[in-house]
Parts: sequence; structure tokens; C-alpha cells
Amino acid sequence: MYKVYGDIYSGNCYKVKLLLTQLGIEHAWEPLNVVDGDTRSERFLAMNPNGKIPLLELPDGTHLPESGAILWYLAEGSALLPGERLARAHVLQWMFFEQYSHEPYIAVARFMVRYLQQAESHRELLAEKQQRGYRALDVMENHLRRHDFFVAAYSIADIALYAYTHVADEGNMSLRDYPHIGAWLERVKAQPGHITMSQGA
Amino acid sequence: MYKVYGDIYSGNCYKVKLLLTQLGIEHAWEPLNVVDGDTRSERFLAMNPNGKIPLLELPDGTHLPESGAILWYLAEGSALLPGERLARAHVLQWMFFEQYSHEPYIAVARFMVRYLQQAESHRELLAEKQQRGYRALDVMENHLRRHDFFVAAYSIADIALYAYTHVADEGNMSLRDYPHIGAWLERVKAQPGHITMSQGA
Repeated sequence: MYKVYGDIYSGNCYKVKLLLTQLGIEHAWEPLNVVDGDTRSERFLAMNPNGKIPLLELPDGTHLPESGAILWYLAEGSALLPGERLARAHVLQWMFFEQYSHEPYIAVARFMVRYLQQAESHRELLAEKQQRGYRALDVMENHLRRHDFFVAAYSIADIALYAYTHVADEGNMSLRDYPHIGAWLERVKAQPGHITMSQGA
Repeated sequence: MYKVYGDIYSGNCYKVKLLLTQLGIEHAWEPLNVVDGDTRSERFLAMNPNGKIPLLELPDGTHLPESGAILWYLAEGSALLPGERLARAHVLQWMFFEQYSHEPYIAVARFMVRYLQQAESHRELLAEKQQRGYRALDVMENHLRRHDFFVAAYSIADIALYAYTHVADEGNMSLRDYPHIGAWLERVKAQPGHITMSQGA
């Protein structure tokens, strides 16, 4: 059986939980708490020297870190990862976009506000993260004006981008000016087998 | 014919040039300069709304951004991207590691020192980038202690990590304490068809 080390309220971990659930893949889940230092323990670093969650453990004990690599591995051969070469490259394009241009701002703003309670003490740094987060939302809004999902049908690209976008308000960001993102969030929520973060806990 | 919009001295663009050269794929190259604002022009934003290079243009005019997605697309079916499911996931693992835990520190330190000349004026910020960059190098050194390449044979994971690692000194970072990284850099340079940044210009 697969096992995941993670925190369901971390968007990167929730992505994996959502995919496993939608694919109907049985798995164990070991909750780890980043703020408490669980990912810096000797035991965890032996499994993932980069000290980050989520971490997937395969039935044979092999470890696979990086949410993007885990999503790709699990979705291979399913309807959530297209088979055509260019479509697959576009899925990766949006997954790399999320990790480079979206997550470091939108997820970090949320982490600062929700976990570190720095909304007041680090106002300037937070504003900078939010500003760059809005730039990522602009790119998404622009794409969703003409597309229902990021690449043809619902795929792991949507899962990757949904995870932190749908909780952007927890980083004191507003989606009010992003109607196409709003409609896309609803389409993602309407997918068979969808679960919320709380439902995954 | 393929066309690439890029700056050969940007590691992310050099990755694509190196792969195209090693695969013997004919292509055109249009040089763009980030510092001069070429990637914020109306013309470029119409091709890549995220305003980043490299950007691959396929023979039919389709555009594919994100170096990781471009490498994956081009290497598919070649010896530089393994065919086995878990090995492919490990290749992606290291490519996501590079974009999230390596490039934002090592490439940004280099950009600050080499392009923005901020080594003195932004000393504290630079030191922070370098420190996190060294953490990424620690993870790589640890892995290379027991492996010749990041995933079995030389692959696009090595190309992705080589690009900014081999010019880390341009961000005032030293590889002196990383002998396994040093040996790996030599193995990468010895691959058939290898070219330097200057040779790609």
C-alpha cells in the first residue's frame, strides 16, 4: 500500500490526497507538522534529505518527494494525465508555473498570515508576496477566459493550481476581481470524488 | 523548425540549448534580453503571458513556456529521458527540486551579482539567497556521494541541475566543499555533444 507523509492543510500535500481520492487509490497517511519541526527530524531526513512534505512511500519502501513528481507518477495512465505528447507538456508547463510563479507567493502569503501570524509584523514582505501572487492570478485568469480547464479536460494541472488558489483568502488575498478563476474553482469542486482539505483530514 | 526565444547566459535557456544540441535537433534562436525588458513587450506577452524565457515555438506556431516542460517535451523518446515509470518520476523530482529549492537561490544570487551588481548594496539579501543555495547543494552532494548521475544514466535531470550549478561562482558561491558535485560537473561536461554557454551563443 502507498503511504503519504504530509499535512492535509498544506496545499502541496492536499494535492496528493485529492488525487489519490479521485483515483480511488488506497493509502495510509502519516500526519507531519512542519511548524513543529517534524520534517527536520533525523528519521524524516533519512527518507527525504530535502526535508519537505509531501513524501510518497511506495509499497516497496521507495521514497518519492516533490508534489509535482508524485502527482505525475500516480496519475500516469489515468484520465487525469493526457496521453498526447504536447498535452502532457502543457500539463507540466502549468505545474512548473505553479511551483515557480504561484506557490512561492500565494502559499507563502498564506503561511505568513495563517501559521506565522505575521500579517501585521511583516506587512511589507507580505504585500510583496501578495503582489507577485496577483501576477500569477492574472496569468491564470487570462488563460481561463478561453478555457474551462488548464489543459483540455480536468487534469493534475488543475489539481496543482487549485490547491493554493482556493485558499488564497487565507493569505489575505481576494479573488473578487478574478471571475474566470472563480468559475473554474467551481468546476474543479464539481469533479467526481472531490474532497475538501477538512474532508481529507 | 523549432524556434527558441531566450538568452543563452540564462541557465534556464541554456538548458534548452544544451538539450537541443545533444539531441541534434535543428532550431532557430531569437536572443531576448530580460534586463532590457524584451520579455515585457506586447509581442512577447502575446506568446507567453507569464513573460518568461525560455519559450519554445513549435513548427506549427504553438508556444510552450517553462524550461522543465520544454526539456520534457523535447527529450521524450530519447536516451535523455528514461522510459520506466518510477525513473521518470525521479527525473521530475529533481527538476521540481531545481525550480523550487535551487534556482530561486543560486540563480537569483548570480543575477544579483552578475547582472544587477548588488553584491555590496544588497549584502544581507544576497547572503540569504546564498545560504539557501548551499542547502540545495548539500542535498545534491549527499545524493552524488552514491550516484554518478541524478537518475541512473545522464538525463534531463542532470541538464536542469547543471545549468546554474556550474556557474554558482558567478553568484559569489563556492563549490570547494562539494567534491562530489565537482566530479559530477566533470562527468556532465564529458557527455557527447556538450556545449558551454559561450559555445551556444
